[in-house]
Amino acid sequence: MTSEPEFCGLDPKDWTAFRTAAHDLLDACIDQIAKAESHPWQPVPEAIREAYRLPDAAGGVEIAELVARLKAEVLPYGTGNTHPRFFGWVHGTGLAEGLVSEMVAATLNSNCGGRDHGMVYMERAVIDWARRQMGFPKTASGILVAGTSQSMVLALAAARQRMLGSDFRARGLQGERLTVYAGEEAHNSLHKAMELLGLGRNNLRVVPTTSGGFDPDQLSTLIADDRAAGALPLAIVGTAGSVDFGRFDDLRGLATLARQEDLWFHVDGAFGAWVRLADQPWRNLGAGIELADSLSCDFHKWMYIPYDCGLCLIREEKWHRAAFASRPSYLEGLETGLAGGDPWFCDYGIDLSRGNRALKVWVALQSHGTAALGQAITANCRAAAQMGTWIAAHPTMKLASPVVANLCVFTADSRRNAAAQSALNISIAQKLQLDGTAVFSTVKSRGVTCLRAAITNHRTRPADIQIAMEAVAREASILV
Amino acid sequence: MTSEPEFCGLDPKDWTAFRTAAHDLLDACIDQIAKAESHPWQPVPEAIREAYRLPDAAGGVEIAELVARLKAEVLPYGTGNTHPRFFGWVHGTGLAEGLVSEMVAATLNSNCGGRDHGMVYMERAVIDWARRQMGFPKTASGILVAGTSQSMVLALAAARQRMLGSDFRARGLQGERLTVYAGEEAHNSLHKAMELLGLGRNNLRVVPTTSGGFDPDQLSTLIADDRAAGALPLAIVGTAGSVDFGRFDDLRGLATLARQEDLWFHVDGAFGAWVRLADQPWRNLGAGIELADSLSCDFHKWMYIPYDCGLCLIREEKWHRAAFASRPSYLEGLETGLAGGDPWFCDYGIDLSRGNRALKVWVALQSHGTAALGQAITANCRAAAQMGTWIAAHPTMKLASPVVANLCVFTADSRRNAAAQSALNISIAQKLQLDGTAVFSTVKSRGVTCLRAAITNHRTRPADIQIAMEAVAREASILV
Repeated sequence: MTSEPEFCGLDPKDWTAFRTAAHDLLDACIDQIAKAESHPWQPVPEAIREAYRLPDAAGGVEIAELVARLKAEVLPYGTGNTHPRFFGWVHGTGLAEGLVSEMVAATLNSNCGGRDHGMVYMERAVIDWARRQMGFPKTASGILVAGTSQSMVLALAAARQRMLGSDFRARGLQGERLTVYAGEEAHNSLHKAMELLGLGRNNLRVVPTTSGGFDPDQLSTLIADDRAAGALPLAIVGTAGSVDFGRFDDLRGLATLARQEDLWFHVDGAFGAWVRLADQPWRNLGAGIELADSLSCDFHKWMYIPYDCGLCLIREEKWHRAAFASRPSYLEGLETGLAGGDPWFCDYGIDLSRGNRALKVWVALQSHGTAALGQAITANCRAAAQMGTWIAAHPTMKLASPVVANLCVFTADSRRNAAAQSALNISIAQKLQLDGTAVFSTVKSRGVTCLRAAITNHRTRPADIQIAMEAVAREASILV
Repeated sequence: MTSEPEFCGLDPKDWTAFRTAAHDLLDACIDQIAKAESHPWQPVPEAIREAYRLPDAAGGVEIAELVARLKAEVLPYGTGNTHPRFFGWVHGTGLAEGLVSEMVAATLNSNCGGRDHGMVYMERAVIDWARRQMGFPKTASGILVAGTSQSMVLALAAARQRMLGSDFRARGLQGERLTVYAGEEAHNSLHKAMELLGLGRNNLRVVPTTSGGFDPDQLSTLIADDRAAGALPLAIVGTAGSVDFGRFDDLRGLATLARQEDLWFHVDGAFGAWVRLADQPWRNLGAGIELADSLSCDFHKWMYIPYDCGLCLIREEKWHRAAFASRPSYLEGLETGLAGGDPWFCDYGIDLSRGNRALKVWVALQSHGTAALGQAITANCRAAAQMGTWIAAHPTMKLASPVVANLCVFTADSRRNAAAQSALNISIAQKLQLDGTAVFSTVKSRGVTCLRAAITNHRTRPADIQIAMEAVAREASILV
């Protein structure tokens, strides 16, 4: 052994050089965040894509050179969602404080799957805060996950566990047909969760919704018919903020129906759940979440927390644990030392190794607090209303759906036929993305591909709405 | 609308104060990483746990004060896996460059679920690098995930998709009994994946293994019996580095058997897959991974990348896509602009919103390169061998299992009965954790709870092994 050269680890050989380069990079990062308006999305040039390649012989780049490359080749090519006029899909903005929390997270390098250390306690503190905002009881459990898609899987797994009993994990599905009920605007992640869990997307029974949400009678009839046909109705999923048009189901009504039918009531509140922090009238849209058996929502969307961070709350901890807890010998807890502490988050989900999502939420809450985050959410609802008013006043534009909270879906020229409207709207979206003015995404509504703004952006001010809409109108008149 | 006060967003009001505080924090983070040996795990005092709580009225903490709190209340309470004598469970060490990559990631705040931006190209570059190291063909696909637990779910879902056909996602499981085969040291995450997918953990057929791995005849017989009983054999899972003792299955043999039986061959290489970067004789343990239909492994363990970052590689992209791709109208790709680019990573897994895991791998590879990472892995194998030699030479200590690569499992005093050995080993683990000397975890072997070191720590030098083992011997003589 002694004849071998000793390996000196992967720490920097020159800490001074590392420190200098890191401070240089920090300044560049702060500059970029402080001038977010100057950094819209831009396409990634072919030369940059090539520069990202990693030949086997790569490596050995000095830290100063690496930082120079990060500044030139990486920082300019983000998703663009930090820009004040980014309204695409539902992308949160992030926070300058993300720099602070992520430096600490990288230094700690904690594995938050369990055991007895600071970041486990911090995650409990964050979940307890979220639990209170959502009106869940103290007996609820929760876990931070990548996002709502992941959270939906966990919640439905807990519901399935309750229905199929303690031996389900051992035996698996044995031909039972479990059905789940949701409105027609339910998010695709629900379909994907049904597939992953082996339940089948056809067993997601989609109930036609009107502007007032589900028709409860229709839903009851469907459940009864499924039961008569031998299915096992499992859960009703309410949507708090549909991804296409931002609509909210009547969550209280669904909660009542779920209780009557002895079904699990899950709420998909990916972004919409956070209206509970907003002013009225928006706050009231979230009423009923407190009655759910489980909730999925994201911190990285409408709480502006850096990617990624979602939440799964389960009303009765026992179903959460029943669905996931499982510790073999090498993970047994001990009374003291690092193997202590309980619960371990690995008992509440799929992941055994888990990064640090709690710290960035904690830092944001310490810095801004519940009230200021609520003001930002309220400001986004006002911005969407402003956009809706602008469109309603325009001679050729038309809303595809009334603005409910923070989503605004519209067509730029309602006088054309459906195909021409779609082509125009797509052209406008692409043109404004490419020239860096604003990012709208698109969605189909009654056969027309429309422009869609989802405003979950704390940098968006009234002037940004004005600039973006004037640009849409200008392009609509040019791109004929 | 104009009567409302304008909300000014969540950017710092005072960028100078923010900049000063962030630089101050960066110095503290660098200091802590540079003096990793002075920062072992320590218990979290009750006052600190209290300080983490988030009352609704929290918020408004000035950035300088927040940084002071992070330094005093957060930085001291990590998992301790950055310390050179942390050998518990299988926890990677992280890298100083994590500071650099996470600052950039927080600044970009990219959503890596898809679309056309830099971090999507970077993730493809990282996966292409990993694909080459693992000997997968160019046609393979891959995705970065939280860790191997998550990756196992994706891989088995792809296998299930291949077996059950194109309408499976629509119809779900309909009473088919899918069986999976693995050695008795298969990781618990495989059991959990079976449960989540609705397959049932009883349908994980555990094959007794000897020191040479599976007995292929026994496995063939089991598969034939299951087929005769109406089951649908789905997959063989080989383990590259078992979590209890660090053993490697005969992956080539299993690959051959899987091909003969037309089963999917998956490799769980959570940490062990990376022996492919090490020197011989360890490198050869990973032979056969290149024959797998899918591979799960982690970057945050034996590649030292900050938490969390795992990998799922699928040999034939079509099964990966068949299992997960699904894009409704609002996610439709467009030819140009931000909605361009293909594939989108959301088509390869559960998550639609995805944080940035690629950048930290890319930065590490640019900085250190394939060869230096291989040297670190080799040094860990040498350290485990050194520990094994030390134990073999000790009068009362005894290895529970030969050291294969980086794991060393032993009892501190083999003269006692099983209960007394277990009690002693647990006491030693706790004592050394609490006094900050070293972190061993524990695992049961033939009725004895043993001490277990998993060395995936680039800071561990020969002197650290010596210090840790002398401390074990000292405590063994004290804690009677």
